[in-house]
Amino acid sequence: MYMNNTINRILQYRNCIVYFKTLGFQKIFAMNLAIEIGVSAEQVRKDFSLLGVKGNKKGGYEIDSLHSTLNVILQKEKVENVIVVGTGNIGKALIQYKGFSYDNINVVAAFDIDPSKQKKSEAVPVYGLERLKEVINKKNVKIAVVSVPAIVVQDVCNQLVLHGIKGIINFAPIVLKVPEGVIVNNINLTGEINNLIYFINNIDTLK
Amino acid sequence: MYMNNTINRILQYRNCIVYFKTLGFQKIFAMNLAIEIGVSAEQVRKDFSLLGVKGNKKGGYEIDSLHSTLNVILQKEKVENVIVVGTGNIGKALIQYKGFSYDNINVVAAFDIDPSKQKKSEAVPVYGLERLKEVINKKNVKIAVVSVPAIVVQDVCNQLVLHGIKGIINFAPIVLKVPEGVIVNNINLTGEINNLIYFINNIDTLK
Repeated sequence: MYMNNTINRILQYRNCIVYFKTLGFQKIFAMNLAIEIGVSAEQVRKDFSLLGVKGNKKGGYEIDSLHSTLNVILQKEKVENVIVVGTGNIGKALIQYKGFSYDNINVVAAFDIDPSKQKKSEAVPVYGLERLKEVINKKNVKIAVVSVPAIVVQDVCNQLVLHGIKGIINFAPIVLKVPEGVIVNNINLTGEINNLIYFINNIDTLK
Repeated sequence: MYMNNTINRILQYRNCIVYFKTLGFQKIFAMNLAIEIGVSAEQVRKDFSLLGVKGNKKGGYEIDSLHSTLNVILQKEKVENVIVVGTGNIGKALIQYKGFSYDNINVVAAFDIDPSKQKKSEAVPVYGLERLKEVINKKNVKIAVVSVPAIVVQDVCNQLVLHGIKGIINFAPIVLKVPEGVIVNNINLTGEINNLIYFINNIDTLK
């Protein structure tokens, strides 16, 4: 499934707004958002106007009210429970990441096949995969972040989908097969670096 | 700077080809790549034809020769030295990630402000930031992966740019300011999860 560009921009506006809020801003102008996201200020005003967000060229937008409006549109008012599968370095980083809680994202549990990594008494407990079904159902989890070795990731993904997961963030450099109705976002570090290599070597010709 | 769509597709083709190679494929069809990337087989054939890559509908493409051709186009024949700044969980994952070496990416050094994390004798040595300039120059490094706290990331970025870094992968949820000619790719985990939340909640209406 491909992303709708308008929604994609709204998600970016919201990320920027959260950032400007943390810097202490109380108002924000279309131009601020336009510069951050790389669109025109006209585009920002048009998007907000379509969404019924009120502001004006001179006074800008009230940042709190803009944030609330976008949260309603993006359905971010409620806390979303997520799980992490695989507790290697990336998994550990995700479990310990403080930023999620500021954004209504709650890591309810992690899972690892290795019994020595399973710790039920931690703030984010680490279970064996046999408890996936139970936790997903009990905590109404729809999203899993998967950082397991490439060789097992499709198998893990199949189990997650079987138990009701609808969205997966995958760190393995593998194209996962999922049934319709399930979304996978890939974070491919090697791919990102390759893109950079290409673009810094060709920045002049691509301008 | 915005990505050119054709180049973006070529980068994706190459990632897929590396994947199919690891699975033992010797030939690949336009349709295989089309399905993985979400474009039409016609588009794949058109791109390859523009690039002078030869193949045919019945026999497909020789995967090794296709891989070499794309490597030449993407300038991936030579090893690219990269550095990692910040050795928290994400930094550690990057230092230990085996996949880079299969792809001509060489992590030559890591940097951390915390003296207790600096280890000069490791396979990937961890230095203090005062050695950034020396390592960047000596190893001809153009790309840095930055996983430091949001509060210091702009300062770290400024130092990197000053010493000649041209491409940055940034894990902090902050929009970095860089001069023209420097590219930043952001990996925003919270943003990725928010996108998933929105799309799984609206998958029916967005179809």
